[in-house]
Amino acid sequence: MIIGICGGTGSGKTTLARRIIETVGPDNVILVEQDSYYRNLADMPLDERHQANFDHLDAFDNGMLVNHLKRLKQGQSIEMPIYDYRNHVRSEETIHLEPKPVIVLEGILIFAEPLVLDLLDVRVFVDTPDDIRFIRRLQRDIVERGRTVESVIAQYYATVRPMHHEFIEPSKRHADIIIPESAKKEIGIEFICSKIREVVSGNSRIEAGILI
Amino acid sequence: MIIGICGGTGSGKTTLARRIIETVGPDNVILVEQDSYYRNLADMPLDERHQANFDHLDAFDNGMLVNHLKRLKQGQSIEMPIYDYRNHVRSEETIHLEPKPVIVLEGILIFAEPLVLDLLDVRVFVDTPDDIRFIRRLQRDIVERGRTVESVIAQYYATVRPMHHEFIEPSKRHADIIIPESAKKEIGIEFICSKIREVVSGNSRIEAGILI
Repeated sequence: MIIGICGGTGSGKTTLARRIIETVGPDNVILVEQDSYYRNLADMPLDERHQANFDHLDAFDNGMLVNHLKRLKQGQSIEMPIYDYRNHVRSEETIHLEPKPVIVLEGILIFAEPLVLDLLDVRVFVDTPDDIRFIRRLQRDIVERGRTVESVIAQYYATVRPMHHEFIEPSKRHADIIIPESAKKEIGIEFICSKIREVVSGNSRIEAGILI
Repeated sequence: MIIGICGGTGSGKTTLARRIIETVGPDNVILVEQDSYYRNLADMPLDERHQANFDHLDAFDNGMLVNHLKRLKQGQSIEMPIYDYRNHVRSEETIHLEPKPVIVLEGILIFAEPLVLDLLDVRVFVDTPDDIRFIRRLQRDIVERGRTVESVIAQYYATVRPMHHEFIEPSKRHADIIIPESAKKEIGIEFICSKIREVVSGNSRIEAGILI
């Protein structure tokens, strides 16, 4: 079973994905992040790399992602790429991932690419207000990625915000479940984990795209 | 456990509620509809009754609804009122309801009244586009309630639509889970039912408002 978790930057996708893995148990679930499949920009001068549009579907190596998801579904292992955000290149190292009963795929544009969307058995969208998403991104990019406030704002206006409204927000209509930003978010997580536990324990399965 | 299912007119609340009861089994679940708690307009001339605002919180006997929900939570039975939509009066008869482990409460304004909202352990919002909701209401009111197209449109503009945007749409932020109108809606239902089965079977419970 592949569960897709989509949502804009700073929506809380990664937190939800990690909580699912924690709750269901890492023995049964693996996490695949769309961000790991960013194209390698090593051929581009470093200055230009920073100006690239990382919020467009073309920024991702979707062919490789689809190929890896299909391999995992068929019970084969993959070598997941590692992306270096500071230099915008793919690392030489990879992460070896063995297949497990549940695959959680998280990313901003996983509902926008039909070939990826079609592979998802369950589609969850994390819906968080735009201002809260910006604040979280600002804090994360300063602390984890060494950016300045001005560079985060410039990138937000140039690509992050327009791409969000053009591609991510409209892709919400593909969701089976939407988890809104709310004080009782834990309940949404619990509902998702409950179904996964049923699938892992063999009390539920997917036939012809339908959970039964 | 009380599960609240909220959403605008024609959003598919009743369908979702009935599917939950069907899937989990009627031995474990009872359905309470907020519409049953419309105030009795018997004292008002029939002409005026038709002009009343049925989409405002004041149209409901919320005190009685809260009282009934508390009784059910305490393991006591209730006499649920029956509402006559054609004459806008409360019937003399009632429905006798015995308490069961899961109570499903559905209605347009259950998230808008804090006293009702506070009693809900799980809050589900069914989010359906406005045009689809209007079309469904039009079809239902003509077939089931003997209205004309013009009277449905007049009521929609006068009260249904403004009240939706003033009270129902903003109350969506209280939701734990949002089920969007989509082809794979069955999956959302399955996730909700899975958690209810865990609660009914004693593998999950609510402590201090938190599902565990």
